[in-house]
Amino acid sequence: MAELAEFALIHALQRRLQSAPADPDTLLGIGDDAALLRSHGVLAVALDTLNEGVHFFPGTDPADIGWKSLAVNLSDLAAMGAQPRWALLSLSLPQIEPGFVEAFMAGWQSLATSHGVQLIGGDTTRGPCSISVTLLGQSAPQPLLRSAAQAGDDLYLSGCCGEAAAGLALRRGDLALADANARTHLLRRLDRPQPRVALGQALAGVARAAIDVSDGLLADLQHLLTASGGLGAELALESLPETSELHLAAPSLAQRRQWQLAGGDDYELLFTAAPADREAIAAAAATAETPITRIGRLTPDSGIRLLQNGIVQEPPATGWRHF
Amino acid sequence: MAELAEFALIHALQRRLQSAPADPDTLLGIGDDAALLRSHGVLAVALDTLNEGVHFFPGTDPADIGWKSLAVNLSDLAAMGAQPRWALLSLSLPQIEPGFVEAFMAGWQSLATSHGVQLIGGDTTRGPCSISVTLLGQSAPQPLLRSAAQAGDDLYLSGCCGEAAAGLALRRGDLALADANARTHLLRRLDRPQPRVALGQALAGVARAAIDVSDGLLADLQHLLTASGGLGAELALESLPETSELHLAAPSLAQRRQWQLAGGDDYELLFTAAPADREAIAAAAATAETPITRIGRLTPDSGIRLLQNGIVQEPPATGWRHF
Repeated sequence: MAELAEFALIHALQRRLQSAPADPDTLLGIGDDAALLRSHGVLAVALDTLNEGVHFFPGTDPADIGWKSLAVNLSDLAAMGAQPRWALLSLSLPQIEPGFVEAFMAGWQSLATSHGVQLIGGDTTRGPCSISVTLLGQSAPQPLLRSAAQAGDDLYLSGCCGEAAAGLALRRGDLALADANARTHLLRRLDRPQPRVALGQALAGVARAAIDVSDGLLADLQHLLTASGGLGAELALESLPETSELHLAAPSLAQRRQWQLAGGDDYELLFTAAPADREAIAAAAATAETPITRIGRLTPDSGIRLLQNGIVQEPPATGWRHF
Repeated sequence: MAELAEFALIHALQRRLQSAPADPDTLLGIGDDAALLRSHGVLAVALDTLNEGVHFFPGTDPADIGWKSLAVNLSDLAAMGAQPRWALLSLSLPQIEPGFVEAFMAGWQSLATSHGVQLIGGDTTRGPCSISVTLLGQSAPQPLLRSAAQAGDDLYLSGCCGEAAAGLALRRGDLALADANARTHLLRRLDRPQPRVALGQALAGVARAAIDVSDGLLADLQHLLTASGGLGAELALESLPETSELHLAAPSLAQRRQWQLAGGDDYELLFTAAPADREAIAAAAATAETPITRIGRLTPDSGIRLLQNGIVQEPPATGWRHF
């Protein structure tokens, strides 16, 4: 059942869309009962939902919500090595707020444009603030699966993990940070994640298995290991990439480790590859202009072992989600 | 950011799915970052969201919510003449409720199975109860568009409108009805709509324009007229189909008219065709084993005129949504 508000919101979306690039494979976009697409080969489809009070705080800048609701789906397609193309957006709002919709769509569109993603349909309705996005894209000839890892594989991480968790601590007021540039950087990592779409596409056919880091490095590593038949991993803690901003936010190594290993919302790619393919992996990362780090290797026995310069470490007692 | 609850819910969904028919075009279903589909030709994609307290009352049988959340999307694809194939489901719940998920999926699956729809992915998260469904299907060679109607077209309706509104009045306690069978029938029309998928497919290439009736007959007729360049319509009120259950619920003609014209949630198809194609339309309806009624015709001038045996009627003063 559509709402009175729906038509006003759809018009706002349509105005936004006039700037979207025309795609000859989009036969019918917003405005009918369904969109019509001409797709070639294999399609990759992902759906993710963000709820106010769960995935973002009440009062978050609507432009950031718009950005992030698309970014989390782009990250899913990045983890498959797919090329994103079309999005459908469901936007629930407690009441008609044209200003919210305009700002939301501005944030959305700035990310959509840079990835060539066209909004082709959706639903706007009354309800608690919630955003559900379905993203469709072209699959790579050899998509990256969670389940394709093998014992002995190298384990890699793009960018670095833990900065979004530091941003969340800042947002919550749990952390004070005098350096304004560092504050801005860490909050931006939380609010405006940069999905690793180019890297995912470059890795398809080269890497073996991949997942995006949304729940935290250890949690998502465990998902990959489980999907690959119950493998294990050794993680070299000293190799985990750190930034100067993360150092400023947490002089304590224990705090940094916790953010790096258990913090969510980083939307980096965690992937595996055969040791024989190290040069090809480095070349793919260079093509995608994305920093990557080898952080460990996969083992035939299940479980994740944390090593510091080769010495087994105990995981911290608290702060581990999903364990 | 996924929730602790997510994995339990996904496992419940996966158990449900083991009974789903295998589809050789589903290369990868639930469990990775995205699903992978092999699609042929043109794809039709629709997304609809149902929110508790807006689209259904708190306390609604979860099996009915599961059914209806799929049905409203099937109805969108029916209105395009498309063949539904794959669905993605986003389910937000305030807390982990395995019983809710099991019942929801039972209702969902009973409808999905009868339409050959496979659940291939989605998201489960914490939040106010909300369901967002994306449905993908195969487009007909000549899809039914809202925008293709022409002046002079006949106007048709499948089944009948107004019963879901009567069911809503019963559910709200605004209506008493002694006849238990009629009560059950009307509530079922509200809770378990039967999307007109077979009819839509049979009409593709024969009818000109179509829309599904979710907001109410007049409101959706207006959407079709607007999309077709600002046409108008004459509606022959005496031809509007009525059922014995609707008569029992509303002995008053005025009440029945209001439900028929302005009640939502019927998920019938409203469509137009050239008068020369009356036999082909009747044959399509017979093929789909779906009753249809010719209820008016389209005019070059905008606006909807209500006629009772050829005499123009005033629309009722109240109860008209979207006008």
